[in-house]
Amino acid sequence: MKIVMAHGSGGNATKQLIKELFQKYLANQYLDKMEDSAILPSSEYPLALTTDSFVITPLEFPGGDIGKLAICGTVNDLWMGGAEPQYLTVGFILEEGLKLELLERVVKSFADTAKEAEVQIVAGDTKVVQGDGGLYINTAGLGFKKAQTPLGIESISKGDAIIVSGCLGNHQASIMSQRMEIANSIRSDCANLGFMVKDLLKDNLGIKVMRDITRGGLATVLNEIAEVSGTTIEIEESSIPVDPEVDSFCNILGLDPLYMANEGKFLCVVAEEHEEEILTRLKKNPLGTNSRIIGRITDLSKYIVTVKTRLGGRRIIDVLYGEGLPRIC
Amino acid sequence: MKIVMAHGSGGNATKQLIKELFQKYLANQYLDKMEDSAILPSSEYPLALTTDSFVITPLEFPGGDIGKLAICGTVNDLWMGGAEPQYLTVGFILEEGLKLELLERVVKSFADTAKEAEVQIVAGDTKVVQGDGGLYINTAGLGFKKAQTPLGIESISKGDAIIVSGCLGNHQASIMSQRMEIANSIRSDCANLGFMVKDLLKDNLGIKVMRDITRGGLATVLNEIAEVSGTTIEIEESSIPVDPEVDSFCNILGLDPLYMANEGKFLCVVAEEHEEEILTRLKKNPLGTNSRIIGRITDLSKYIVTVKTRLGGRRIIDVLYGEGLPRIC
Repeated sequence: MKIVMAHGSGGNATKQLIKELFQKYLANQYLDKMEDSAILPSSEYPLALTTDSFVITPLEFPGGDIGKLAICGTVNDLWMGGAEPQYLTVGFILEEGLKLELLERVVKSFADTAKEAEVQIVAGDTKVVQGDGGLYINTAGLGFKKAQTPLGIESISKGDAIIVSGCLGNHQASIMSQRMEIANSIRSDCANLGFMVKDLLKDNLGIKVMRDITRGGLATVLNEIAEVSGTTIEIEESSIPVDPEVDSFCNILGLDPLYMANEGKFLCVVAEEHEEEILTRLKKNPLGTNSRIIGRITDLSKYIVTVKTRLGGRRIIDVLYGEGLPRIC
Repeated sequence: MKIVMAHGSGGNATKQLIKELFQKYLANQYLDKMEDSAILPSSEYPLALTTDSFVITPLEFPGGDIGKLAICGTVNDLWMGGAEPQYLTVGFILEEGLKLELLERVVKSFADTAKEAEVQIVAGDTKVVQGDGGLYINTAGLGFKKAQTPLGIESISKGDAIIVSGCLGNHQASIMSQRMEIANSIRSDCANLGFMVKDLLKDNLGIKVMRDITRGGLATVLNEIAEVSGTTIEIEESSIPVDPEVDSFCNILGLDPLYMANEGKFLCVVAEEHEEEILTRLKKNPLGTNSRIIGRITDLSKYIVTVKTRLGGRRIIDVLYGEGLPRIC
């Protein structure tokens, strides 16, 4: 069975698809009402709102699929702002010809990941377009900012450490391997960062900024922080954690892990006096065992990001130019 | 200038597109921070959350465009729940080859409509996919439920009136005319229903249910209400407001306005004692001059929707079967 245009009509075929597939996996007190919008309890905490669309191809890959990614990506964006995710909305755009079994696996994975991340899907929408069996997912997330940290980009000081929560490049290397049909055991790092971050938000540990290291890679995220804060960031190439298999993959293809996309890694800018405590907490989590300090804020008067290379030289790193890898997330 | 895959890389080309196009029209205190999520003030009111994806083709049509539609659709869904829209997120999925001038017109229209609807775009995302110059937009909306009404589907009583806020079928007739290159003056009714609905939410006027009459048409919405509430709805064909030009268009093509999509019409189920007051308020609004009572709840014991035809017969109306019109919203 495949998706046909009638599944997007808003009539009986749409109703059946929603009943037999989406409701089967996503049912809850809010969605079951089938109203135009979900009415949720008020909140004493500041609200956090974010959105992300997912257009990754292939739809399933080692370590995840577009459904898992669509939960993790949005949930992680809320956690990066120090907010606890609670409610998500989802928009599915299905291409004609999409196999129903594939869609069902993705929706199941989406539902399972939502459950693990302790978020409820409270509103949804399905559309069908012409195409070739593809699938796009948009999620928007609402969370509550209960923690005082992160303190914000304006609190960055000289000497602050830049900590990365693990090895870089696995997501992109996995997607590229699959597209190029290269056999290896590299898996996407696609993960919900919530449990790890929740532990950092306790006790006001002087975390200034958190950012997940997705599209554009570490180089792009560092440049965004340095540009907005007008500061100089210096990192050490030898400190950047990379899995040996990803490292080989990058060497063969001439890729730089600094520019590669991840889906389960983040960086934080933290006050020097708390860096050891934060590193210890990160390393305790299974997702953070390879956490490392990779550099520091060295100057508050000018925007530049540099890396000290393994050979002892120093070069400027800019944001990603050109194409990157299309449809990586 | 056209969209290329590099605009979706997350690197410099993406940054430039965001700066020169999206920020130009959508800048505000939340978006300007370029954080992973927007942090918003807490709320004493219950929250309302909704989402919709828009895949309409053509992207521009008489009476609107996909940008205007993407605001109105989501804002209207919040109003239907009795909630005041306040914050929106947006996900743009751009197809390679999309003309930048067209995208700019759409983004400008999106921004203008958001301003008129008094909502702020607080988070956004842009992706690029292969394709043929198309564009999909997802919006999610967060609102605050300040009003006591609507009372909910469980409050429906025998004798309640069904009021429709204006003529049916204009949106679908306009899109079909454009696709078939039929010259006429039919325009989409695409509109923000907020100002009209806000006036109805005051003074606890006994409104039970509000629904916007979009994909699937009036027949589908009536069936949803009758099914969930387990009631009988009887409407009169001669009471259903249809513009003369849309009526001719439907007669020629054998279409039924009951099944046609609208983007600026809603129905409400209201207590008999308030129906005149509600009708008066609706008619005062430029968008509601053709408001009419089209039928009633006649039985609380079984789910069925019937229409009394112009010839005096009575037939059952079911939800839309089959294709409807693809990519109508």
